[in-house]
Amino acid sequence: LELHECLAKRRDTRHFLSEPVPKTVLDKAFKSAHQAPSVGLCEPWRFVLITSQEKRIALHQGYLKTRAEAALQISDPELQKLFVSLKLEALLEAPVVIGLFCERPPDSRFTIGIQGSIDTVEWSCVCAIQNLWLSISAQGYAAGWVSIIDFKLISETLKVPQTWEPLGLLCVGKPATNYGGIPMLEKENWKKRTPNPVVIEV
Amino acid sequence: LELHECLAKRRDTRHFLSEPVPKTVLDKAFKSAHQAPSVGLCEPWRFVLITSQEKRIALHQGYLKTRAEAALQISDPELQKLFVSLKLEALLEAPVVIGLFCERPPDSRFTIGIQGSIDTVEWSCVCAIQNLWLSISAQGYAAGWVSIIDFKLISETLKVPQTWEPLGLLCVGKPATNYGGIPMLEKENWKKRTPNPVVIEV
Repeated sequence: LELHECLAKRRDTRHFLSEPVPKTVLDKAFKSAHQAPSVGLCEPWRFVLITSQEKRIALHQGYLKTRAEAALQISDPELQKLFVSLKLEALLEAPVVIGLFCERPPDSRFTIGIQGSIDTVEWSCVCAIQNLWLSISAQGYAAGWVSIIDFKLISETLKVPQTWEPLGLLCVGKPATNYGGIPMLEKENWKKRTPNPVVIEV
Repeated sequence: LELHECLAKRRDTRHFLSEPVPKTVLDKAFKSAHQAPSVGLCEPWRFVLITSQEKRIALHQGYLKTRAEAALQISDPELQKLFVSLKLEALLEAPVVIGLFCERPPDSRFTIGIQGSIDTVEWSCVCAIQNLWLSISAQGYAAGWVSIIDFKLISETLKVPQTWEPLGLLCVGKPATNYGGIPMLEKENWKKRTPNPVVIEV
C-alpha cells in the first residue's frame, strides 16, 4: 500500500473479526517496528505477545476498573453516559494482544541524543509502535492502542523485567469495520477532528 | 512509495543539498502528520517553521553548548573523539528547520485515554512526527530529529506559547546521501543495530 494511502486509512480499531492473524503478518510488522528511528540507535522497544487468556482477563478487569474511575471524573451526565457506551478496547476478543514496553539504555552507557530529554527514549518506542501499526494496516489488518488501564498492572500481569517500562497494549486483528473512514471517536460524536494542523512561522 | 519500502528507506539525515523544499511537499507532510492517531482525539501536535536565520544561529549555538557538555561525560578518549566528529544536526544549512511541540489539552476537559499515563499526549505528537518524517521520505526528501540541545532554549528562542512543550527540532531537505542504506551512527561505527526486535511470549 502506498504510504500516504496507508496513513489515511490507518484507524484506531476496537472492533475485530475472529479470524487469526498469520505469523507472517506479525513478523513483518515487528520487522517494520525494528526499522524505526531510535535515539543514539538504542532500539529500546520491547514487545510481549500475550497468549494467556488468564492474563487477558486480568488486563480487561484492570481496564474496567480504570474506566469506572475515569467515568466519575465526568460531571456532565450525558457525556458520562456516552463515555461508558464507547468500546475503547478489545482485550478479550482481539485475535492478538501485544504488550508495549520501553527499556532505557543503562546509565553507564553514553547515549547520543538523550541530552535534551530522557523521554526521547520512550519516543523512539512510539516511532516503532507507529511503524508496527502502519505495517499491520498496510497488510489488511488493524490495531488499537489501549491506555485506559493502570500501567503498573500491565507490568505485574505480564511479569516483564523490572527495567521494562509499560507503554500500553495493542489489540490486533482483521477489522470488523473501518468506522466510515473517520476516527471512531468522531463517528460516535465524542469529538471532531480539526481540519488542519497548527503550523506557525517564526 | 509503498509503505514497507518507505519504512526501510527512511533515514535520520544530517547531510542535505541546498535545493529548497517546495511548499507542496511540506503541506502534504503536515497533512500526513495530522492523520496520526491521538489520545482522545486531542491532536496535540504543534509545528513551527523557522524562517529566521538569527533564530537558527541561536539554536545552533545551543546545540554546540549541549554537545560540548555531553562530550565531557565520555571517559574513553577515542569514543569522545568519535562523538565530536559526528555530524548530528543541520540547523544552519538544512533548507527547512521545524520546531516540534506538544500542547496538552486543558485539565478542565476530560480526555479519553490519558488515564494510564499523561505521557500518551506526547506520544501522540511522536506518532505525528513519525508520519511527517515518513511523508517527507516518501516524497524524495529526508529529515533528521535533533535532540542534543537544551529544550528550554528551543521554547525561548522560538517564543512559542507557554503551553507548548518542546520535543526537539526537525531538519528537512533533499538528502546529500542515504548513508549506504544504514543508520548514520552504524555507518560511522558508533553503534550497530541488532538484527531482530525483542519479542517475548507470555
